[in-house]
Amino acid sequence: MSEAALAISNDDPVLVTDFAKEMVRQMRAVDTYGNYDNWPLEKILDPFVMTKERRREIPVVGDPDEIILSRVKAFYNAISALIEKECGLMAVPMLNLTHEGFGRALITVGKLVVMDRTLRDVHRFGFPSLSKMKDEGDKLLSVALEIIGQHPKVAGM
Amino acid sequence: MSEAALAISNDDPVLVTDFAKEMVRQMRAVDTYGNYDNWPLEKILDPFVMTKERRREIPVVGDPDEIILSRVKAFYNAISALIEKECGLMAVPMLNLTHEGFGRALITVGKLVVMDRTLRDVHRFGFPSLSKMKDEGDKLLSVALEIIGQHPKVAGM
Repeated sequence: MSEAALAISNDDPVLVTDFAKEMVRQMRAVDTYGNYDNWPLEKILDPFVMTKERRREIPVVGDPDEIILSRVKAFYNAISALIEKECGLMAVPMLNLTHEGFGRALITVGKLVVMDRTLRDVHRFGFPSLSKMKDEGDKLLSVALEIIGQHPKVAGM
Repeated sequence: MSEAALAISNDDPVLVTDFAKEMVRQMRAVDTYGNYDNWPLEKILDPFVMTKERRREIPVVGDPDEIILSRVKAFYNAISALIEKECGLMAVPMLNLTHEGFGRALITVGKLVVMDRTLRDVHRFGFPSLSKMKDEGDKLLSVALEIIGQHPKVAGM
């Protein structure tokens, strides 16, 4: 993919947010061979943006490969890390997918399920734009923190 | 396997308990081709008993196959079904294993994690005897029901 094809501009204000930083950190964590070491942030986060044009090129039915799964994990790991940062309690993500890309993503804090999503068509995982991804992450984060606030005892179990 | 090699006798009192009945029901549920239709209960539940002799024949390190995984699922599905029967709320089991047989088994009721176990060496999954298996199941069940009793609001979420 040429530089010109990136769906995120390098001055996107979202790139300096905590969420984007955590996402990059999660992507680097799985980058065993250091391929991303010299990549700019927008290039590392670019595969998360699924524009209409990109989506059109992906078959409707398909099996997610390891690379896509690592992205899905990075997304939910980032949310877990942010939950942990906010509330100080360990948040554990859990991803359960069939080979066809259907399943559940779960985040637990103590004995509390703070996020529970049904996943479909994971082979087309992505967001319309970087800011939409951040919105989604922020929403999941705030709902999770609200649930923890309501049931701090269960979260601390 | 010859009939004589069964590790459960056909007059084992555990066979008539709710737990054993539910286990058999779960095993039949995954028996697509009806292979178990004419099997006695003790033969269906026999593979769950991992005697010392049987354990000795299994390598220390190994990957669990689909048959073993379906047994592990049957066990936790049975516990979920019993939780549901007792408290009237839906219990959802979730099994997350690496191909090497390490991972977690989780049961959630509403937003409450009522069971959370770390699994290891799943390729050697089994119990010393049928009554030990029932003990284990009963223990998990009573702990789960206790947690639900303590936090009924979270379980109902």
